[in-house]
Amino acid sequence: MDRSATRRGLPAMHRAFAVRHARSRWAGDPDQFGAAAAILAGDLCLSWCDELFSSSLAEFGPSAGIDAERARAGTAVFDLMRTQLMAGQYLDVLAQSAGLGADDDGQVDLARRVIRWKSAKYTVEHPLLIGGTLAGAEPEVLEAYSAYGLALGEAFQLRDDVLGVFGDPAETGKPAGDDLREGKRTVLVALARERADEAGRQLLESALGSPDLREDDVLALREVLVRCGALAETERLIDAGVRAAEESLASAPVAEPARTALLDLVATATARRS
Amino acid sequence: MDRSATRRGLPAMHRAFAVRHARSRWAGDPDQFGAAAAILAGDLCLSWCDELFSSSLAEFGPSAGIDAERARAGTAVFDLMRTQLMAGQYLDVLAQSAGLGADDDGQVDLARRVIRWKSAKYTVEHPLLIGGTLAGAEPEVLEAYSAYGLALGEAFQLRDDVLGVFGDPAETGKPAGDDLREGKRTVLVALARERADEAGRQLLESALGSPDLREDDVLALREVLVRCGALAETERLIDAGVRAAEESLASAPVAEPARTALLDLVATATARRS
Repeated sequence: MDRSATRRGLPAMHRAFAVRHARSRWAGDPDQFGAAAAILAGDLCLSWCDELFSSSLAEFGPSAGIDAERARAGTAVFDLMRTQLMAGQYLDVLAQSAGLGADDDGQVDLARRVIRWKSAKYTVEHPLLIGGTLAGAEPEVLEAYSAYGLALGEAFQLRDDVLGVFGDPAETGKPAGDDLREGKRTVLVALARERADEAGRQLLESALGSPDLREDDVLALREVLVRCGALAETERLIDAGVRAAEESLASAPVAEPARTALLDLVATATARRS
Repeated sequence: MDRSATRRGLPAMHRAFAVRHARSRWAGDPDQFGAAAAILAGDLCLSWCDELFSSSLAEFGPSAGIDAERARAGTAVFDLMRTQLMAGQYLDVLAQSAGLGADDDGQVDLARRVIRWKSAKYTVEHPLLIGGTLAGAEPEVLEAYSAYGLALGEAFQLRDDVLGVFGDPAETGKPAGDDLREGKRTVLVALARERADEAGRQLLESALGSPDLREDDVLALREVLVRCGALAETERLIDAGVRAAEESLASAPVAEPARTALLDLVATATARRS
């Protein structure tokens, strides 16, 4: 989900405000100003998100057949989603810094755990559970939504990670290999650290996270990710997620047009082109 | 409101997490880790604040006589409060950096405007309006709450600013003159920039915001604030706020025990000792 603004060529908010500060020759540090403005914009969006949710529920809920009990149950899922999202994001920050004691073999599991809590629940599972709960869906439908959401959410994030390294800049709106420059500890990278030969591993250690990677450095890193099988394994995980998402719908009493929409979403969210 | 944690000797959250990062010898920059953790903790508190408000309303509102219409009206005030708080905080950040085009004479008005939007509404006015709206208070009571809240909220912040420069470290829990080291553009400081003589003004320009101010620098700055009359004028503004808050209650139909509690709050929030 991180890429949507930059894909359209917009700078991140903290950069935009830092540039405004520097151009205006205001007092103080442009980067600090940019960070403060971006934090406040984020807080504002967080407040507005809740305001939109609860005021829409109050205004349109009754005529949509959402009684007070359902509204409360749906709001509880919404609240859980926000809390788990913050915890998942902190897990990500912590994993990037501390590795959480995982040895090399544990890094893939850790990266997948981060995806689950930071992305999959928030991106797909909880939105479906909120809607289903408000609509009074049967427990079997909610269970299917959970299984579908977690599987598709992970596959979607894995696809995003692949595009972050191998994506076409014309489509992603970011320079080739930008995730490599940032040093993002994705599942793709964790797999490579586990599987690469000694030379490949050394290249990963030394080059990942260097902001000044050149085009040929990026190509060499891509080559490591391909040769050691990390890319193929990530594609295999994406395929497995796609199948699991589809199967979770197959046996559940999910009615049309929801079933077709959810199947279409599997294809769209995991397509090889962004 | 900024001082409550540091008054009890707790480090700010971003510092505590930076220290944890450094002590654990984790990868990356301790300060960046601390900032990320603190931002997420803030987001979590922002979410929980809303969750507490709306779930309490859903659970206890009906038995407290708060019907759906009142709950909606009270929630609208709550939402307005959050949006205005973010805007007020951004106004503060912007005023510190850009001065917003105000000349020297305009700085006092600007600093008072920041207090109004960042502190007074959020600290006193809106909490009273939320409670009053949920309880179905008459329009005259809500008007009195607004006048009371804005006047007391400003006076409270001005007292906090005075304590930030002249307060006893044993009581404030912060080193003497900490606001001077931070270079906070308070009303107190804006008044001094307007009124000090040339020597005093030069001292303010050169010393404010220097993190390494020594004890005697702080004493010299305090002397400027006293001699030019900025402290006395700030105390006069606090007194005027106290009187305005008291008068706004005098003519309004505010019943006991609320009236006495609100009058007690005026005294507590503006006392010369923290």
